[in-house]
Amino acid sequence: MTTALSRSEFEHALRDKGRYYHIHHPYHVAMYEGRATREQIQGWVANRFYYQVNIPLKDAAILANCPDRDVRREWIQRILDHDGAPGEGGGIEAWLKLAEAVGLDREQVLSQELVLPGVRFAVDAYVNFARRASWQEAASSSLTELFAPEIHRARLSSWPRHYPWIDQDGYDYFRTRLGQARRDVEHGLSITLEHYTTWDAQQRMLEILQFKLDILWSMLDAMSMAYELQRPPYHTVTNERAWHRGIAP
Amino acid sequence: MTTALSRSEFEHALRDKGRYYHIHHPYHVAMYEGRATREQIQGWVANRFYYQVNIPLKDAAILANCPDRDVRREWIQRILDHDGAPGEGGGIEAWLKLAEAVGLDREQVLSQELVLPGVRFAVDAYVNFARRASWQEAASSSLTELFAPEIHRARLSSWPRHYPWIDQDGYDYFRTRLGQARRDVEHGLSITLEHYTTWDAQQRMLEILQFKLDILWSMLDAMSMAYELQRPPYHTVTNERAWHRGIAP
Repeated sequence: MTTALSRSEFEHALRDKGRYYHIHHPYHVAMYEGRATREQIQGWVANRFYYQVNIPLKDAAILANCPDRDVRREWIQRILDHDGAPGEGGGIEAWLKLAEAVGLDREQVLSQELVLPGVRFAVDAYVNFARRASWQEAASSSLTELFAPEIHRARLSSWPRHYPWIDQDGYDYFRTRLGQARRDVEHGLSITLEHYTTWDAQQRMLEILQFKLDILWSMLDAMSMAYELQRPPYHTVTNERAWHRGIAP
Repeated sequence: MTTALSRSEFEHALRDKGRYYHIHHPYHVAMYEGRATREQIQGWVANRFYYQVNIPLKDAAILANCPDRDVRREWIQRILDHDGAPGEGGGIEAWLKLAEAVGLDREQVLSQELVLPGVRFAVDAYVNFARRASWQEAASSSLTELFAPEIHRARLSSWPRHYPWIDQDGYDYFRTRLGQARRDVEHGLSITLEHYTTWDAQQRMLEILQFKLDILWSMLDAMSMAYELQRPPYHTVTNERAWHRGIAP
């Protein structure tokens, strides 16, 4: 049996997975470099909305599987952040502001009619994993947050320059998440470093993190097909949007 | 309230969804027309294997939610077909024969290491739907079988001509399914025509069928990215296969 990694070696191995973060996906790179069209930006915002609305469901699934009150008291903050505490807008509302800032119609975004099947399946995989895994595994799958501050910064530093037509108020989501992601990652990381203490368990956790990286990459693949390569679903047989709007029970 | 479709109108509306069947996906079209490379054929067979191995799980989820013994007695045949009754190979084994016939290594296919994340997420969406939906909804989602005989025939009539390097024994799966799909579709269709009797319910069923069509199309999109457009996951950062092999709990 291989010896377990030390705490710092394990953390290093987790951070090393950043190589596969979707910041390197051609779709994201095009957005930072100012090469994205208005349709590509709008497509990304409308599709990523599906991820945003599913985060609280994912976090609620973790709470629902977690018998540890202390963990729940801390983890619940994520749901409050996204849904908004009483009197506050919250992350989903901030994302809708971003949608309006890039010229999308709020009702259309809320209807999810622009969400591509490939994006839906990837995001649903994340929620379903959280429903069925142990709360520790589900909690640790959120550790792509390790790399999130960099991606929020990259957006904040490049988008206003390249896309002057986007209303500045739209960027509140990224600014707010910069701070929240740092705090969340501390909690998620401490749960993770605590929980996986054998070599085999650590390897499994690296695969769970890879699974989450696959979800983010796969979402952008679906957007690339639809908005970059002009191959949305059923493009060979119809010019109309044919796909379903979500029939999950 | 809109009046419900008659039984035959509803069946017609279901069959009309065949427009969106993946037989029209460029990846499939290239395979029938003899334009697919060896790598593209192998990629399809190895990825579609993930669908094959999940069908019995999907059908077992339907059984697990179904209190009707008569339905279970009929539906269980699908599991026996795929897994193989005692003394028989079954559909999964026949697919492995196809994999060998196209030059793949059986153990590599079984390991699922060639399965792309986008394919995994799409197939998992089907299994998860079957776990959480009512048994009638899950059963009716299999109705893309309405269009399956045509696709099996298209393969049998074009592949041997275009790809003489594929061993003929590999085609048993398609031949066997031609008959099985016809029988399955009768059962699935009678459950469906019985269950959805209001306009709203019929519209929902059309969306469920669309969801299943989306799964099949989305699988081929992921394969197009990897084997046609040379954009497999993480192609910008590594030449190696980085994605996970499935960590579903």
